[in-house]
Amino acid sequence: MNEIAFIEWFLRDIEPYVREKYASRATVAVSSKEDVTDLLTEVDLSIQKRFVEQAGDRFPGDLIVGEEGEYARYPEDPEARVWLIDPIDGTYNFVRGLFPVFGVSIAFAAGNTAVAGGVSLPITGDLFLAESGGGAYRNGQRIQVSTSRRLEGACLDVDFSSPSERMDLFRRAEGLFGKTGQLRCRGAAVVSLCSVATGDTEAYLHAGLTPWDFAAGEIIVKEAGGVSSRLDGSPLRLFDPCAGILMSNGALHQDILDNLQP
Amino acid sequence: MNEIAFIEWFLRDIEPYVREKYASRATVAVSSKEDVTDLLTEVDLSIQKRFVEQAGDRFPGDLIVGEEGEYARYPEDPEARVWLIDPIDGTYNFVRGLFPVFGVSIAFAAGNTAVAGGVSLPITGDLFLAESGGGAYRNGQRIQVSTSRRLEGACLDVDFSSPSERMDLFRRAEGLFGKTGQLRCRGAAVVSLCSVATGDTEAYLHAGLTPWDFAAGEIIVKEAGGVSSRLDGSPLRLFDPCAGILMSNGALHQDILDNLQP
Repeated sequence: MNEIAFIEWFLRDIEPYVREKYASRATVAVSSKEDVTDLLTEVDLSIQKRFVEQAGDRFPGDLIVGEEGEYARYPEDPEARVWLIDPIDGTYNFVRGLFPVFGVSIAFAAGNTAVAGGVSLPITGDLFLAESGGGAYRNGQRIQVSTSRRLEGACLDVDFSSPSERMDLFRRAEGLFGKTGQLRCRGAAVVSLCSVATGDTEAYLHAGLTPWDFAAGEIIVKEAGGVSSRLDGSPLRLFDPCAGILMSNGALHQDILDNLQP
Repeated sequence: MNEIAFIEWFLRDIEPYVREKYASRATVAVSSKEDVTDLLTEVDLSIQKRFVEQAGDRFPGDLIVGEEGEYARYPEDPEARVWLIDPIDGTYNFVRGLFPVFGVSIAFAAGNTAVAGGVSLPITGDLFLAESGGGAYRNGQRIQVSTSRRLEGACLDVDFSSPSERMDLFRRAEGLFGKTGQLRCRGAAVVSLCSVATGDTEAYLHAGLTPWDFAAGEIIVKEAGGVSSRLDGSPLRLFDPCAGILMSNGALHQDILDNLQP
């Protein structure tokens, strides 16, 4: 089983477990991390543990990094073979929400860039997959970013989730927000990135993501025809220091960057 | 059939039609209103037309107001018996979105206040109902707002959908945004209001809603134990001029108002 096949297998295999836990989420054990609304559930931990076991068995020697616990680390050699997992991106929405706006995200990277990635939205059963040079797919159907070229008609997803980053983002993006047709804040990066890839959203802006949040989403967006960068327009590389990301349909990328303050 | 029974019947009856149209939404006819992202579909028009026929047959003499066309009007006598329909609240999300974040909203008002209301989330099958003094229900189960008293742990839904109202809201709510645990912008008032009623969200803030957007949601929030007001804290009445609304779990209402600039 190669990397993308393993990602697909794992994401499909974990779906029933996530569905069962979501259906009974009132009884799921939840704790807070540093921030009182940065939540951690037993589901995050179980999925990551299972991934570490399975990936370790099949790809011995590869590094695994992820959102939880000791796996929240950067590789010593950013060029090495690295697996990245965000077991539940959108944990807050998992715990609280009328709609299941969260996803499981897995990427495989080599040379400081994702070369295969998958995102599962377990409750709707949507599975997004992309491999370098092979296009992006939703449940086996090829997907494409939107062709919209006008900010006034665009939908921009923004992450306002952390109060500390939020105020700086308001300041930097004020000009952009004044011109953009629709704003959304969904609270789950992988959902927003898959929305860019399907053409449902034009762009996604976040002031401070970690690599396991965006690695899979980034390759899905790029293979769907989109573009990624840092907020100053420079190339985004997985493990380089990064103060914010923009991923878009490409056609609007420069226009959005031009409307951001340094 | 009394008013609440009619609301329930109509919302359940329309579900299969909305589901069918949502499943085939790539072929649904869409046009723009004044604003390029203020969308109108054949589904909005069909639901409103059907409601006008059915309510007109069963409650002759009652006024009907609604989001679309000639029905987007205020009653000459705000104290009269009035039906309010928003056929699809969240039309943009209906057309574009990985999750079906939209709802059908119907309220019955007398004395310038909603006395019965219902919201259907047709794709998930959730039906919210409330009647004055009778409590609020989701699929027959009683619902309650959250008991959270701390802004740092709260989730605040804000509507940033219109660029013109958005910038003023950023200015007025800057202090609030700097203190609130989580922000969301879902782009469908009825979904946010039902989230307040279920306790999934602490509060919802909008700078300029019309009565058919919030009438049903308001009675659902209030009957679930929540509170509504205008942004200056004064009472919200359906057909009075209104520059913004706040609906919350009650416990956080004054704290939120205190953090808004005039």
